[in-house]
Amino acid sequence: MIATLTWTADGVRFIDQTKLPLEESYVLAENYEQVARCVETMVVRGAPAIGVSAAYGIALGAMRSTAESAERFAPELAKICARLAATRPTAVNLFWAIDRMKARFAGLASAGLAFDEIKKKMLAEAQAMFEEDIAACKAMGAHGAALLPDEGGVLTHCNAGALATCGYGTALGVIRAAVERGKRIHVFADETRPFLQGARLTAWELMADGVATTVICDNMAASLMRQGRIQAVVVGADRIAANGDVANKIGTYNVAILAREHGIPLYVAAPWSTIDLATASGDAIPIEERPAVEVTHHGGKQLTPVGVSICNPAFDVTPARYVTAIVTERGVLRAPYSEALRGMESSEPALA
Amino acid sequence: MIATLTWTADGVRFIDQTKLPLEESYVLAENYEQVARCVETMVVRGAPAIGVSAAYGIALGAMRSTAESAERFAPELAKICARLAATRPTAVNLFWAIDRMKARFAGLASAGLAFDEIKKKMLAEAQAMFEEDIAACKAMGAHGAALLPDEGGVLTHCNAGALATCGYGTALGVIRAAVERGKRIHVFADETRPFLQGARLTAWELMADGVATTVICDNMAASLMRQGRIQAVVVGADRIAANGDVANKIGTYNVAILAREHGIPLYVAAPWSTIDLATASGDAIPIEERPAVEVTHHGGKQLTPVGVSICNPAFDVTPARYVTAIVTERGVLRAPYSEALRGMESSEPALA
Repeated sequence: MIATLTWTADGVRFIDQTKLPLEESYVLAENYEQVARCVETMVVRGAPAIGVSAAYGIALGAMRSTAESAERFAPELAKICARLAATRPTAVNLFWAIDRMKARFAGLASAGLAFDEIKKKMLAEAQAMFEEDIAACKAMGAHGAALLPDEGGVLTHCNAGALATCGYGTALGVIRAAVERGKRIHVFADETRPFLQGARLTAWELMADGVATTVICDNMAASLMRQGRIQAVVVGADRIAANGDVANKIGTYNVAILAREHGIPLYVAAPWSTIDLATASGDAIPIEERPAVEVTHHGGKQLTPVGVSICNPAFDVTPARYVTAIVTERGVLRAPYSEALRGMESSEPALA
Repeated sequence: MIATLTWTADGVRFIDQTKLPLEESYVLAENYEQVARCVETMVVRGAPAIGVSAAYGIALGAMRSTAESAERFAPELAKICARLAATRPTAVNLFWAIDRMKARFAGLASAGLAFDEIKKKMLAEAQAMFEEDIAACKAMGAHGAALLPDEGGVLTHCNAGALATCGYGTALGVIRAAVERGKRIHVFADETRPFLQGARLTAWELMADGVATTVICDNMAASLMRQGRIQAVVVGADRIAANGDVANKIGTYNVAILAREHGIPLYVAAPWSTIDLATASGDAIPIEERPAVEVTHHGGKQLTPVGVSICNPAFDVTPARYVTAIVTERGVLRAPYSEALRGMESSEPALA
């Protein structure tokens, strides 16, 4: 069992994803500021994991507060939420989780509960989000497994696995479910520069589960596709707009174009909390630019000439027309996505 | 002036491309075996540079030989050529250079020249190939500069520059010539995993020439294209088949698909020695698989989990239909390439 994030008596314990796969070490965040720093520095990453981390961060903020009442805590909560919201801009699960915790607080406060009671219920809300995330991943796996071939190569980009969620994974949840159902899948993991989530994290967690995995450089995908070695692509998402455009790790758009050129289906697996119906299209999704040092250095070693200009967008947008299907815990959606997403908006998760 | 390979009284001096950009150091190859090792370990790389290196290696082999006559040297020459031919399989310039040196020896030997005289003329042949390579790059630059926009972003992959040739470069020669003619080009250099020829070598040599250059990860190209920041792509080649299929650094095929999807022209710049009319199509080009350690480690630091499976093809094949034009020292070729290549086969280099 991979313990991406775990609630403990002292706070949230994160597996340090900046150290994997060479070192399996853990970081304890004892207050919301430490949670925010873990998100910013990518000790924890992955849209669903970031969302639940923020929820725990807010619960921690309430628990550590010296406010004497819910009313006194309200401005503190606003500050806590603003701090957590400022960590990373693209994954909408972060804002979804913050909004949900804010709404929970507002509901409890307006019901007149004592602040001590509210603290407990806010922690319970974060814990419910943790459990729901794992259940959503399992449901995505159940829905998505049928989409994968009985035998063949499946390409994934970045890490949309247990390490990007509270467990099991979104894209890797679909792969895990397919393997559990007896499908003979060989995973090709894009190494995913610059942070190497594929080479480091996807490889590590799939090897731990005994799933056959080959790491490739991001620029090798087209060559493997042309050789007929890839039958499907499955990726996660950081935000899905109302028209089905998908923001995900930089390079997903490359892979989507290559897949379509070779007639290979591209599936996006994401919990409903990743869907942002308030954002009309991918053009309106803010794309985080990360520090140049992620590209220029690795493990403290410099790769590029001193002073060279660098681009480092952390995400790109894949237009909906490249997406064969979107797998959520509520079921599988197909184009036209605007209608499909609106149609499924009010439905409950359904196990396949 | 970048001294990629230089003939000296003691042998061939190579700039050590495995050490760039952090360290500008040189390696002296005093015999053909040392030249072969420099090619294998990528101290020197780039199809045109490898070809001329092999020619110098053969000249060195002749000079260091203790054979008393050309006749006695002949079996030694076969061994030298076999050793150099076994270094890297994909770039055809290597075999072209070896064949040319063999033919030169055969011609001189059958003319009855003394072996000492033959040695001098074999070195002169290698030196002529060196000079011809630079002249070819300059001619490619002159022909190709007109293809680039007067202002805009030009993407290049790997290093097809001064460091891949005897000077000036093929793809980067086209860019240099465009900049020299006053075009305002901003170069985007794919970092080019796993060996990072773009991040390390292209960035280094373009910065040295004051050409505006931004390094991007290989998986960022589609995103920049969609943003309208790239107006043209220029790459080199390791072998061009008779039908116009292009073998080049792994990832070129990815870039070619992305460029076509965005309506961006893709130009391939290569000397005529890269064209292999004896190979019908790209399917028949042998693709070198390099050691896994290039992907799993960088600078001695391990990136991936121990024991993970790796793919590391050094090249891929871009089908001719993705190539907007091929720029050679003889002129610019356009589809249908079979006819265009045959038509230009016997022509002489023409300066634009």
